[in-house]
Amino acid sequence: MNLNYDHTEKILTDFIKNETHRIGIKKAVIGLSGGIDSALSAYLAVKALGNKNVNFLLMPYKTSSKSSITDALQISEILKTNSRIIDISDAVDSISDSLDEKELPNVRKGNIMARVRMIMLYDESAKNNALVIGTSNKSEILLGYSTIFGDSASAINPIGDLYKTQIRGLAKHLNIPENIISKKPSADLWKSQTDEDELGFTYDEVDKYLYEKVDERRSEAYLIKSGYSEKFMSRVNSMIIRSQFKRLTPLIAKVSNRTVNIDFRYNRDWNT
Amino acid sequence: MNLNYDHTEKILTDFIKNETHRIGIKKAVIGLSGGIDSALSAYLAVKALGNKNVNFLLMPYKTSSKSSITDALQISEILKTNSRIIDISDAVDSISDSLDEKELPNVRKGNIMARVRMIMLYDESAKNNALVIGTSNKSEILLGYSTIFGDSASAINPIGDLYKTQIRGLAKHLNIPENIISKKPSADLWKSQTDEDELGFTYDEVDKYLYEKVDERRSEAYLIKSGYSEKFMSRVNSMIIRSQFKRLTPLIAKVSNRTVNIDFRYNRDWNT
Repeated sequence: MNLNYDHTEKILTDFIKNETHRIGIKKAVIGLSGGIDSALSAYLAVKALGNKNVNFLLMPYKTSSKSSITDALQISEILKTNSRIIDISDAVDSISDSLDEKELPNVRKGNIMARVRMIMLYDESAKNNALVIGTSNKSEILLGYSTIFGDSASAINPIGDLYKTQIRGLAKHLNIPENIISKKPSADLWKSQTDEDELGFTYDEVDKYLYEKVDERRSEAYLIKSGYSEKFMSRVNSMIIRSQFKRLTPLIAKVSNRTVNIDFRYNRDWNT
Repeated sequence: MNLNYDHTEKILTDFIKNETHRIGIKKAVIGLSGGIDSALSAYLAVKALGNKNVNFLLMPYKTSSKSSITDALQISEILKTNSRIIDISDAVDSISDSLDEKELPNVRKGNIMARVRMIMLYDESAKNNALVIGTSNKSEILLGYSTIFGDSASAINPIGDLYKTQIRGLAKHLNIPENIISKKPSADLWKSQTDEDELGFTYDEVDKYLYEKVDERRSEAYLIKSGYSEKFMSRVNSMIIRSQFKRLTPLIAKVSNRTVNIDFRYNRDWNT
């Protein structure tokens, strides 16, 4: 779990630079939420591409906490980067109203917010020929704690292989302000929502388990001996399995020699 | 290019049944546009899951052609399936207005429409525990003629390995009405838009080329000898290459032993 943060910083800034420039793009756009994940992607992107080439979108909904905006603006000021505020309240409410239901449950409404933000980011991407840089960490990607085609949508994601605890380490290394590092992780989709309350465990606990299970491929016997309860293990395993669809492209029924995403799967360098 | 359509029908209905039931889901939802692709997915889904288990969403925008709705309703009546009309005009215009620009170019507005439809389909999916069944064909997937996180978004896609010309063959085999099979393919995102005008070639031409290039892996020399012009070939090849990002999940920077979508990539059956 311990990373050499100097080295990690270099890998990730090189990644952003290479993956952007190799397809002839100079600019990037990032949705800044005020949280640590998008702040870290923002710091890395500005280091990689320069502050003139990175735009931030701040996309509050009417129930978003005020500190989300002030924290995001703080990042934007430190990095001397252009940022734009787009209030998504009308757009989200208009979609909600079209669904013709009295009141949507929190999760469905949260999904709409996350997806409207994706729409705004991708429109900005099309307008300015800018890549959308992702802000999902490895903990939430594995747990499926995200909205598919919403906050998990991006072109490239520099921080998707870092657990939340490693995100904190790299954020400290880059001198991201302490108030952003230490605040409780939250998707801020409804009032007083916090990740750890909703998940039922802390990132410290689950990251340690995910690292041993996924990265180190430890056996169930080993993990039980290490002190994890069967209940905790089966809950986390089932979250990983049930969210597999969020990490994959649509499954295509194979009828030919070469099916997209089965035998035809290239990362921007296909020739034959 | 010639398929045994009896066999293909069986493969595709089994695919829908298996991929739905194996994850404990009984229902499906499909966005019906009035075009041949979504009609074909609809026919296959109803054959696989039964008409009581498939819902259709019809999602017109104010500029959508009236025949889109009447053709979609015709499919829904033939299949005796529940369908719901959600007018997306207010939702799309509200997003457009939030962007604070006088008038969006057609392509950007078309992307917003496609993504708002995705939001509606995925909300229905969450509400009814129903899988979103995809309606993109192999021609448009390879050419990137789609909106990422919009019309290309689905859980499973039964028709994504069929070229448009094969879609027509299977549609005839299933007795889909002739008016739907023979009308000009169009995304209907703006008035009098047709796929073939916008692409600059017909599906008959490009499907033949794509089949030889992708499925048969023919060399450039062979293809030139077959009579394709270098201009046409380089245009189509570049469309395939430039749209690779639409067929992939976000690229994650690798820093660990096991990175999602590089070394950790499972289709709903991961265990260790």
